[in-house]
Amino acid sequence: MLKQCTEIWELVDKKRPLVHCITNYVTVNDVANILLSAGASPAMIDHPEEAEGFAALASALYVNLGTLSQQQQAGIMVACKTTAANNIPVILDPVACGVVPFRVQVMKQMRQYAPLTLIKGNTAEIKSLAGEETRAQGVDSLDSGEGMEQICMNLARQESTIIASTGPTDVITDGRRCALVKNGTPLFEKITGAGCMVGGVTAACIGAAPEEPWLATITGLLAFTLAGERAAADADNRPGAFHLHLFDHLYTLKKEDLLKEARVEWL
Amino acid sequence: MLKQCTEIWELVDKKRPLVHCITNYVTVNDVANILLSAGASPAMIDHPEEAEGFAALASALYVNLGTLSQQQQAGIMVACKTTAANNIPVILDPVACGVVPFRVQVMKQMRQYAPLTLIKGNTAEIKSLAGEETRAQGVDSLDSGEGMEQICMNLARQESTIIASTGPTDVITDGRRCALVKNGTPLFEKITGAGCMVGGVTAACIGAAPEEPWLATITGLLAFTLAGERAAADADNRPGAFHLHLFDHLYTLKKEDLLKEARVEWL
Amino acid sequence: MLKQCTEIWELVDKKRPLVHCITNYVTVNDVANILLSAGASPAMIDHPEEAEGFAALASALYVNLGTLSQQQQAGIMVACKTTAANNIPVILDPVACGVVPFRVQVMKQMRQYAPLTLIKGNTAEIKSLAGEETRAQGVDSLDSGEGMEQICMNLARQESTIIASTGPTDVITDGRRCALVKNGTPLFEKITGAGCMVGGVTAACIGAAPEEPWLATITGLLAFTLAGERAAADADNRPGAFHLHLFDHLYTLKKEDLLKEARVEWL
Repeated sequence: MLKQCTEIWELVDKKRPLVHCITNYVTVNDVANILLSAGASPAMIDHPEEAEGFAALASALYVNLGTLSQQQQAGIMVACKTTAANNIPVILDPVACGVVPFRVQVMKQMRQYAPLTLIKGNTAEIKSLAGEETRAQGVDSLDSGEGMEQICMNLARQESTIIASTGPTDVITDGRRCALVKNGTPLFEKITGAGCMVGGVTAACIGAAPEEPWLATITGLLAFTLAGERAAADADNRPGAFHLHLFDHLYTLKKEDLLKEARVEWL
Repeated sequence: MLKQCTEIWELVDKKRPLVHCITNYVTVNDVANILLSAGASPAMIDHPEEAEGFAALASALYVNLGTLSQQQQAGIMVACKTTAANNIPVILDPVACGVVPFRVQVMKQMRQYAPLTLIKGNTAEIKSLAGEETRAQGVDSLDSGEGMEQICMNLARQESTIIASTGPTDVITDGRRCALVKNGTPLFEKITGAGCMVGGVTAACIGAAPEEPWLATITGLLAFTLAGERAAADADNRPGAFHLHLFDHLYTLKKEDLLKEARVEWL
Repeated sequence: MLKQCTEIWELVDKKRPLVHCITNYVTVNDVANILLSAGASPAMIDHPEEAEGFAALASALYVNLGTLSQQQQAGIMVACKTTAANNIPVILDPVACGVVPFRVQVMKQMRQYAPLTLIKGNTAEIKSLAGEETRAQGVDSLDSGEGMEQICMNLARQESTIIASTGPTDVITDGRRCALVKNGTPLFEKITGAGCMVGGVTAACIGAAPEEPWLATITGLLAFTLAGERAAADADNRPGAFHLHLFDHLYTLKKEDLLKEARVEWL
């Protein structure tokens, strides 16, 4: 299955999927640049008058609730209507949904318009969606990842969507199959936007291989965390340098690198 | 004429023009930093209550429709009223106007309040404004630049404004005179915001030399693309490093460098 | 007193204060990253539905008026109500308040809901709040810092808040005690966001030591300007490189570095 992932990674570069992003203004520049580094074509469009028509052109819609505005809320809903009518995958990052209950309402509102292909969050976000007790500080999870496989599988079945829970070990499941990605670096927590960027990259992979969304999600997490490992090796524990190298290493990451350096466990 | 351009470049540093920007939230930080690197003084102000009074203080108004918000739309209109009353040049970047028809409406609305000094877009954007068939993917042009000189000259006459079309070769015309700028690097397509940044830099040049807007536009494109060439030489095909070096090379770019390294063709 | 400052700096890393930021979209990514480099936990939340509940969880609220939106204006007011009810410190950066009079109205409106712990601005902003004549260009001060000690002390008494005025010499006073911080580098003026970032860092310090807000403000200014000096030493007068190194040097800045390299004058 790892081999299929490496092929999906190559497809991103070949197909250059257009990823329509409605995302937070804190890390939007990083999301656009990481999508370019991945080989995808990013477009950030949330004005309701624009989002409706635009979403029909996209290979995937990435929605991140990090700094929701009233305009984005309206834009998300019209974009979801369009994606549903055109069978375009929707990827949701419900940032801080455990701490900001309003975002759960927005998520429920979205699902009235479109099914979700993937919900990606950190441990605290996914646990809170699953109704588990959790510990978060603002947008950051303070939670251990213990027992996450089962929590994610149950949530995936209940919500009929792929669930990806990120942390030292990433858990990715469609409710039937489950994979663990063990690549990564603690430096991801020293910069803002790692979660947003990986959300964008998985959206690009799903956009390139919409018939294999579970494998595409794993591909996105693998490619991004592996680029992170390589960036960390160059960065000598400096978060600014790490941030910069991340784009460069994702840009140069090849199929063969994934094959050689991936640490995935297939459950 | 190249000599005049180098003098305009020096004027930016000397006069430190205040550039009022109403621009997208994806690349706004890059636009502010590149304006500082150019020697200008950026101010990003779009609240309608603020934009009206503020625009009167500026040397130029730079409007970029990349992520239009309802607030920006209102801010643009009051700012345009102010610039018209005070004879302040207005520079427009109609990002993705061929793909997002709403932006053409906004552009028409702007022109009811103020004349435009310059419209700067990529090949696909300019062609779509000219009513030509075009190929774009999201915010990116997939179009060849063939025949652009004539298309730009016609559009410039029809719209009574300078037209700058960017691509491997940049075309800059006021409908009468036409110049081609051949500096640049393919790495510009690997980062987000190159178009927004060069829009800001041309606005700074026009703000510093409002009596010579055509030459000032050429100056901005020359300075930015030349800084890009130098950054690419340092970046070894890494987009993150390229992005960083861009600010440094524009900051240190001197009059003499322009004179020596510019590749302009005067038609 | 310098020793107390170094202890506050250590506390930021130990307590990891949650800083709720309502700040401008130009430099918001830098503010989030510099807070992470300082050891704090940033959260950018301005939707009125979200800000009210969220502010109650924070150690400090940082409000920056750099690109005020109508949504932010509403979010600021509900957040201020919450902080007042929960005794949470509020730090205000009234960006360009001398040039954009609307922001003074917003500031007055804020103070109907919550007392301010600190107002931090550049020389021109603080002078304009004090009713002095001043010279600014857009968001930048062109003013000399002459006589600022007295101006700041009077303003602090009148407004019952700490005042920090930044410039080549920073002045920090609670109306009774006054300190001058002489660390820094001219490169701060060559990037956007230095003022916003230092505002965030002082908010983190106040969040970590709310019982000593004056010393905490000095700590924030010291740490940030010292990191700037070190970044400048590495950057060889290149603003892009300086920007990058800033995060790395703040991240590695230790208690002992502050003790050794601080240039503070206690008046």
